[in-house]
Amino acid sequence: MTLLEVRIELKKGVADPEGENTKKALDLLGFEVKKVRSVKVFEIELDESDEEKAVDMGKEMCRKLLANPVIHKYTVEAKRE
Amino acid sequence: MTLLEVRIELKKGVADPEGENTKKALDLLGFEVKKVRSVKVFEIELDESDEEKAVDMGKEMCRKLLANPVIHKYTVEAKRE
Repeated sequence: MTLLEVRIELKKGVADPEGENTKKALDLLGFEVKKVRSVKVFEIELDESDEEKAVDMGKEMCRKLLANPVIHKYTVEAKRE
Repeated sequence: MTLLEVRIELKKGVADPEGENTKKALDLLGFEVKKVRSVKVFEIELDESDEEKAVDMGKEMCRKLLANPVIHKYTVEAKRE
């Protein structure tokens, strides 16, 4: 079994309204914050025990479903077997 | 400057419709997936250079705004100064 950590971030220059509004809310609560970026993570459990194959599968999932290549960049890592 | 990684996960036993639906969609695309868990991450830049103080501040942000203690557990880590 492999546990994948699929991390989907916005590309540089793409607006991040969730991050910006979270920053505003933190500012209003009195926290001094320079920037907030929102990131989506999926932890995916696979039966595949070959880490390399599992990571390749995770990248294909990003290409086919999880990420939008226009605005997202993604990283896929095997966390443990 | 400290960059915090604030990771907000659902507690065990709490329903994760986003993860479940992502799993269904991956199944339909032909991926054999055992489980998908959705996780929210905020990367927060702070001027605070003391890592320990920055992490404490991040935990307070979770308590006051970012996490719902009924359903969420959170971890706060300093990624780099």
